[in-house]
Amino acid sequence: MAVFAKDISLKTKGNNEIYDITSQVQESLKDLGIKDGILTAFVPGSTAGITTIEYEPGAVSDLKDVFERLMPRDMHYEHNKRWGDGNGFSHVRAAFCKASLTVPFIDRKLTLGTWQQIVLVDFDNRPRDRRIILQIIGE
Amino acid sequence: MAVFAKDISLKTKGNNEIYDITSQVQESLKDLGIKDGILTAFVPGSTAGITTIEYEPGAVSDLKDVFERLMPRDMHYEHNKRWGDGNGFSHVRAAFCKASLTVPFIDRKLTLGTWQQIVLVDFDNRPRDRRIILQIIGE
Amino acid sequence: MAVFAKDISLKTKGNNEIYDITSQVQESLKDLGIKDGILTAFVPGSTAGITTIEYEPGAVSDLKDVFERLMPRDMHYEHNKRWGDGNGFSHVRAAFCKASLTVPFIDRKLTLGTWQQIVLVDFDNRPRDRRIILQIIGE
Repeated sequence: MAVFAKDISLKTKGNNEIYDITSQVQESLKDLGIKDGILTAFVPGSTAGITTIEYEPGAVSDLKDVFERLMPRDMHYEHNKRWGDGNGFSHVRAAFCKASLTVPFIDRKLTLGTWQQIVLVDFDNRPRDRRIILQIIGE
Repeated sequence: MAVFAKDISLKTKGNNEIYDITSQVQESLKDLGIKDGILTAFVPGSTAGITTIEYEPGAVSDLKDVFERLMPRDMHYEHNKRWGDGNGFSHVRAAFCKASLTVPFIDRKLTLGTWQQIVLVDFDNRPRDRRIILQIIGE
Repeated sequence: MAVFAKDISLKTKGNNEIYDITSQVQESLKDLGIKDGILTAFVPGSTAGITTIEYEPGAVSDLKDVFERLMPRDMHYEHNKRWGDGNGFSHVRAAFCKASLTVPFIDRKLTLGTWQQIVLVDFDNRPRDRRIILQIIGE
């Protein structure tokens, strides 16, 4: 049993943009000398989240719309009043989506469904340089 | 320290139906020769999710209602326009609920509360054969 | 590779109150003789959840407001009709937020962003004595 830390760097546009990171996550399992275990993908920062979705333009657009509808950009947010950076909506969306996702892998392959991709959602209101930590434990 | 992969098969009705899988998950910890660790339950596919709830008919019905109210079946979804399978609502609900849940176990017992059950929510708009991966790591 | 179980005890006020548990979680990694791995924070019970947020009064207040707006305390809940304890809203909020969060640590330090804290949200409608399980796996 061993633990390996890898990471992914990503320049994002913010503003609810959704990025498919599946191939990079799958790639991280190569050449580690382990076959079975779990991978935790975690994004440091309080304005982004990680989940899975079928990464096709329709579903991706629908997910953005849900966040916009349920936690609108233009509502009153106390965070904005105090900090003036205008990204109060980003903080509540990220707290809902959560920064962490753990996925099992078997025989060096993530156990995702065929139409299921791992995505980063960047809720911030400006472009960001994101780093996603991949912590891999297995044997 | 060792890692074990188990799985649960489940025929679902889809349509927001919620299934209590606690006893099968607890059962998976038997006879592994390990006492303490974590179990990750993960559902492959982009129209189902895993969480915990008090599995009594009232709370179960309330949770279905919340998903229906916040991400209604009959709204416009871009996914439907492109794919014609009518399950756009299923995709956004699943992305919100997320496909993964990690639960610690101590002395071979999941650390759930007395009234807390692990559930699969099947958001799809038709019956499905689901497989839930249980990846268990411990010693 | 080794596994360690720790816990945090917390007297809460319930009613959506949000508690920053970051320093206690970070503290739990001390003196274990391991450097790298993952920590799963899990709250037993079906009326609380764990996530991350920038723990400043504005964002904390905004997150409470979102839960109140999307899953209002005073709606009709079947759970209330059956159990009479009036905390139907707590159950659906907790099922949405989820009881579990897994965070990688590297060189004995949680990989959180500078402005990202781990929080317990107590959705119940009364004060509670909470115990949060921290299951730590690493080497």
